[in-house]
Amino acid sequence: MIKVRVLVGRCGDISNTIGALFKVTSFGESHGKAVGCIIDGCPAGFKLDIARIQSFLDMRRPGKNKYVTSRQEPDKIQILSGLISGCTTGTPICVIIYNYNTISSDYNNITFAFRPGHADLPYFYKYGLRDHRGGGRSSARATIALVIAGAIARDILMCFYNIRVYSYVNSIANIELDFLNQAHRTQNQFCFPNVFNDLFIKNSILTGTQNCDSVGATIKLFITNLFPGLGDPLYSKLDAELVAAIMSINAVKCVFLGNGNSVNVLTGKANNDLITATGFLSNNAGGILGGISTGQDIILTAVIKPTPSIFLPQRTISSAFKNIVLSIAGRHDPCVGLRAPVIVESIAAIVIFNSILRQRVYCFI
Amino acid sequence: MIKVRVLVGRCGDISNTIGALFKVTSFGESHGKAVGCIIDGCPAGFKLDIARIQSFLDMRRPGKNKYVTSRQEPDKIQILSGLISGCTTGTPICVIIYNYNTISSDYNNITFAFRPGHADLPYFYKYGLRDHRGGGRSSARATIALVIAGAIARDILMCFYNIRVYSYVNSIANIELDFLNQAHRTQNQFCFPNVFNDLFIKNSILTGTQNCDSVGATIKLFITNLFPGLGDPLYSKLDAELVAAIMSINAVKCVFLGNGNSVNVLTGKANNDLITATGFLSNNAGGILGGISTGQDIILTAVIKPTPSIFLPQRTISSAFKNIVLSIAGRHDPCVGLRAPVIVESIAAIVIFNSILRQRVYCFI
Amino acid sequence: MIKVRVLVGRCGDISNTIGALFKVTSFGESHGKAVGCIIDGCPAGFKLDIARIQSFLDMRRPGKNKYVTSRQEPDKIQILSGLISGCTTGTPICVIIYNYNTISSDYNNITFAFRPGHADLPYFYKYGLRDHRGGGRSSARATIALVIAGAIARDILMCFYNIRVYSYVNSIANIELDFLNQAHRTQNQFCFPNVFNDLFIKNSILTGTQNCDSVGATIKLFITNLFPGLGDPLYSKLDAELVAAIMSINAVKCVFLGNGNSVNVLTGKANNDLITATGFLSNNAGGILGGISTGQDIILTAVIKPTPSIFLPQRTISSAFKNIVLSIAGRHDPCVGLRAPVIVESIAAIVIFNSILRQRVYCFI
Amino acid sequence: MIKVRVLVGRCGDISNTIGALFKVTSFGESHGKAVGCIIDGCPAGFKLDIARIQSFLDMRRPGKNKYVTSRQEPDKIQILSGLISGCTTGTPICVIIYNYNTISSDYNNITFAFRPGHADLPYFYKYGLRDHRGGGRSSARATIALVIAGAIARDILMCFYNIRVYSYVNSIANIELDFLNQAHRTQNQFCFPNVFNDLFIKNSILTGTQNCDSVGATIKLFITNLFPGLGDPLYSKLDAELVAAIMSINAVKCVFLGNGNSVNVLTGKANNDLITATGFLSNNAGGILGGISTGQDIILTAVIKPTPSIFLPQRTISSAFKNIVLSIAGRHDPCVGLRAPVIVESIAAIVIFNSILRQRVYCFI
Repeated sequence: MIKVRVLVGRCGDISNTIGALFKVTSFGESHGKAVGCIIDGCPAGFKLDIARIQSFLDMRRPGKNKYVTSRQEPDKIQILSGLISGCTTGTPICVIIYNYNTISSDYNNITFAFRPGHADLPYFYKYGLRDHRGGGRSSARATIALVIAGAIARDILMCFYNIRVYSYVNSIANIELDFLNQAHRTQNQFCFPNVFNDLFIKNSILTGTQNCDSVGATIKLFITNLFPGLGDPLYSKLDAELVAAIMSINAVKCVFLGNGNSVNVLTGKANNDLITATGFLSNNAGGILGGISTGQDIILTAVIKPTPSIFLPQRTISSAFKNIVLSIAGRHDPCVGLRAPVIVESIAAIVIFNSILRQRVYCFI
Repeated sequence: MIKVRVLVGRCGDISNTIGALFKVTSFGESHGKAVGCIIDGCPAGFKLDIARIQSFLDMRRPGKNKYVTSRQEPDKIQILSGLISGCTTGTPICVIIYNYNTISSDYNNITFAFRPGHADLPYFYKYGLRDHRGGGRSSARATIALVIAGAIARDILMCFYNIRVYSYVNSIANIELDFLNQAHRTQNQFCFPNVFNDLFIKNSILTGTQNCDSVGATIKLFITNLFPGLGDPLYSKLDAELVAAIMSINAVKCVFLGNGNSVNVLTGKANNDLITATGFLSNNAGGILGGISTGQDIILTAVIKPTPSIFLPQRTISSAFKNIVLSIAGRHDPCVGLRAPVIVESIAAIVIFNSILRQRVYCFI
Repeated sequence: MIKVRVLVGRCGDISNTIGALFKVTSFGESHGKAVGCIIDGCPAGFKLDIARIQSFLDMRRPGKNKYVTSRQEPDKIQILSGLISGCTTGTPICVIIYNYNTISSDYNNITFAFRPGHADLPYFYKYGLRDHRGGGRSSARATIALVIAGAIARDILMCFYNIRVYSYVNSIANIELDFLNQAHRTQNQFCFPNVFNDLFIKNSILTGTQNCDSVGATIKLFITNLFPGLGDPLYSKLDAELVAAIMSINAVKCVFLGNGNSVNVLTGKANNDLITATGFLSNNAGGILGGISTGQDIILTAVIKPTPSIFLPQRTISSAFKNIVLSIAGRHDPCVGLRAPVIVESIAAIVIFNSILRQRVYCFI
Repeated sequence: MIKVRVLVGRCGDISNTIGALFKVTSFGESHGKAVGCIIDGCPAGFKLDIARIQSFLDMRRPGKNKYVTSRQEPDKIQILSGLISGCTTGTPICVIIYNYNTISSDYNNITFAFRPGHADLPYFYKYGLRDHRGGGRSSARATIALVIAGAIARDILMCFYNIRVYSYVNSIANIELDFLNQAHRTQNQFCFPNVFNDLFIKNSILTGTQNCDSVGATIKLFITNLFPGLGDPLYSKLDAELVAAIMSINAVKCVFLGNGNSVNVLTGKANNDLITATGFLSNNAGGILGGISTGQDIILTAVIKPTPSIFLPQRTISSAFKNIVLSIAGRHDPCVGLRAPVIVESIAAIVIFNSILRQRVYCFI
């Protein structure tokens, strides 16, 4: 048979919707006019707490200190539809945030180069062209849409089901951080416990930056007070859905529940969570068995790679596919994981809310 | 507001379809009459190689040696629709496999007990009832559907695009196995290189079984000769789709591309795969950047937990929610990972074929 | 730009699923081994009334009298999965019906000809090949799947919501039939009132057959005791969903609610259904306004074309695209509309049940 | 069993996306801040002709003459994403149009009343609340999104496939209009041939308005130069998809292909379109057989009801469910059908483009 090889170029992206019943369709690139989303499937009659949505956005907002990118964006939301007198009408909610502080000239030197560790080269193969300014659609600014929608989802989860979603930076480079409680989170800059020696952390990040390099991190997420029985047994396992959704965040390379990343070296005896009438005796499974929630807390870890944009010269190729050495300019997070917790939480909330809505469909007979 | 808490029981499962353009909808439970699937979206005019489909099924078939469950099943496929003169007609292909060797009495003692490490308890919360016989829908027999559909997908990938998908057992318990090449795979019982000291492996598995315990494993998957440009940048990243789909396999707890599970401890400099005009200088990313294939080989690892069914007495609760001690009977794999490679490959082939079909939609202007 | 013209041949069919929450995926062609479906999203714990499902199938079954095709099929259902002790388990239900009375030789003379009024020619363009035996996938046998799934849906609608779905043959050729009530339906052969002069009807059908020709019909459907508030305002209007689903039935060419087919000649004053505290004063809208149910009865009409297979010689082309005159053999319904009521009802029940399930998702705050 | 009856109120709308591969997700209500959409799945590298998009919007824009509503809206599009240098990037395109001329006070007297013939009452049942200002989401302003997306779709259809989509007002009240050709359309106010006696038409509309009443209309649509082989044989028949999509337009109550609305009174002999080597001898089927395009022109008719907002006093109920007599104020089209052609064309273009994209998936072997 004939081999058909050439599939590349001029493709369209079809997958900008997350969730099937609380559906978020996002748009926008780093240096375009705006980013935002349409939220479909939000129940009617829910009072939106705009200030709280804004507060979550502020958590991921850049430009707040020297440990994150210096790009200054107000990130103020505008709601264009779906509300009457501050309440949801049940119709689609369109939210937009204009981009202001776009310095596209920062990206001039990568107009004709593919950055190592970035999506530049595969994007070019897919689309046959590339919006090089700020990473285009692959910019972390695209996560704004999910933070907005996630803020609504977590409000509903809390109001109606008393379900809480929170997370923190669990490690930076190879330094593990102790976690005390969520209350500490707002008390420092990094969403991790203030009892920790901040100087030490800051040093490890700055060491990266001083060497013009970057460092990775892990985020740990908890979901408490969740129902047992959520999720489907085969192709929409709750853990698979959480993992896939959180992998939509830039730089997240691995996500697992409980001890999932190292469970292969345990025996069945060591790994099984024994059950008693008063509850499980352990939570190795991270709150999910066979794809369905057990009623224990969901415990999930996201592994985040070091920011690929580093200020060291690197070997790569030009858009003419010639060997070059590239030095990257622009404003970049030395540890992109530091701004990730609120994004991980938001996406987890969207997944969980969808899972609950799906459950509501059937449990009536 | 009023808290609505009770969502459990009598739910339906809605998620038995995998793939959007080459769609596989599966059915069947361990001790029901049959398992199988409907394959929708298979192109017309493709000659099905039934013998090859059967050969893949034989790889996952139980009862072949003392290292896997002794359940004897012929697992012979019957195709009920979608063919004329051995060729696909483009209409849905229904394939069924009857269950024969069901010894439901093996499961009598768990009729009224929830097994630790199994989906029993969350299933009960979800459905309000439970098919306890052989794990019902959560049995590994449900993977048969994907092996059948995957066999067709990989044939098409090979015929039209010369894309190969293969995998092997990469480690058992804490023993890492060296990999030489795929050719060795059919030469031994475990889908790993025959140069390895089989006795050593067998011992480590049997040690588990002799202690009435079980062991975990990892599977390593390769996809070669893939296009660059496959996958979507945000919510259908190619890596996220592979990971989520492979997590539908029983006992798979973590899946990652390249060095994804440990990338947090690297610096950007160490992790970035540098690019030259003749190719990448490394493949830390496992063949995917920003959710889109780079054109390098896909390299993926699946972490598989130890079989939860062990023959040691374990603490758990009865269906009356009383504390009991349970001893599990029945036939179980001491290392469920040993039969996983062909299943991992099949699902990966389905995901990749879907991704190529999605790509075909647009690249025409 | 370059014009890309050739898209025909070797396509696959992707659209064999109906319903998003009570999902029915069907398979099977007229002269294949079997027809059937997988039903996904059926709630757990529902006792299936197999005899009633069979009774609905018997209504559409051919071979019962001289007014319908003489093909003899037992059409006995076999349920392969999703049940324990006669109750649904919430997992997918696979139902199959084997084909027995296939006389493929009847179709020998159309192996190399495209029948006028049939899907033969466009099918050939789509797939590049054609299962000519009995119409392949375009045979009315494919509706069996929907009758089975619809039987379950209407049982649930009746048990839990007291919603009834019924229909009757409203006209044959240009003869309108009066309708009295559903009770009469089982008392005659045609699903229309027995007070009608049967002889007259029979004659009009037989006149068609005696002339080797065929006649059309209309079916009228009622859904009583439905909730107000079902359906979505824009792209999943309840009327649009009913219409589209019922158009999946062979030979249905037009479907409308209330007076929809002639509403253009009314004025607003004449057409508006006035509202009082005790109910609407008319039901021109057929129970749906703005895509959402009003709480009145749904009233819907399906217009069914005359069977295209007639026994007169007709001009057409051969598969070599040469002019020929074709005389069709085989067994065909002189008025295909006569067997349609139970199919129309079944599909309507599936749509309505899906709509209710969708509604259940949100109405909780 | 227990009857569960109460499903009404506080629901969400989930269905604001049309198309699966060229996906349009719309938002916005009549008197909200803006209306618009996100277009997902637009191929990269296509030069958008903004002026042409605007010209289609201008066709449906209100306020142009005394035969349509006097609401004045500039309806100028703003594109927020998905473009670089005027070309599509393959990422989602967000388009918004701000609402300006909202006189919500016009709707004060219906704040507490349900208008006959409108969606007011079922909306209230669905959502438990209602945006009464200008009909909220059920306003014809929501069609703006589809005109924008349809403009892009028809440009692509024309550029790459030379497929044309056009329509005209075929009848007003009971007056049938002759059609000559599409060229005349821009030469008068109503999208019908200028050879027609305009005065006569105008009179029939004004007669309606002078009596404070309204009139219905039919629209006839043609699609020329289409491929044979488009559409799927069962649940995504091309005709069913066109019909369902066009029914999303306000006031459209019935849509049919060819002679679909009256085919029941023909015999098979009269209705079958005979085939010759040089083409079909008739087009009763309207270009589609068995759900798949034949290669003939698509011919489709949409039946549009008289505007339900009339200026005569009508019996209805208040929001307290008491009998009242309501006189409607506000600005309304005396014949809502007059602005429908461009909307019908736009939606048809979206459906056809999706169908072609779906076809592209498979025809490769």
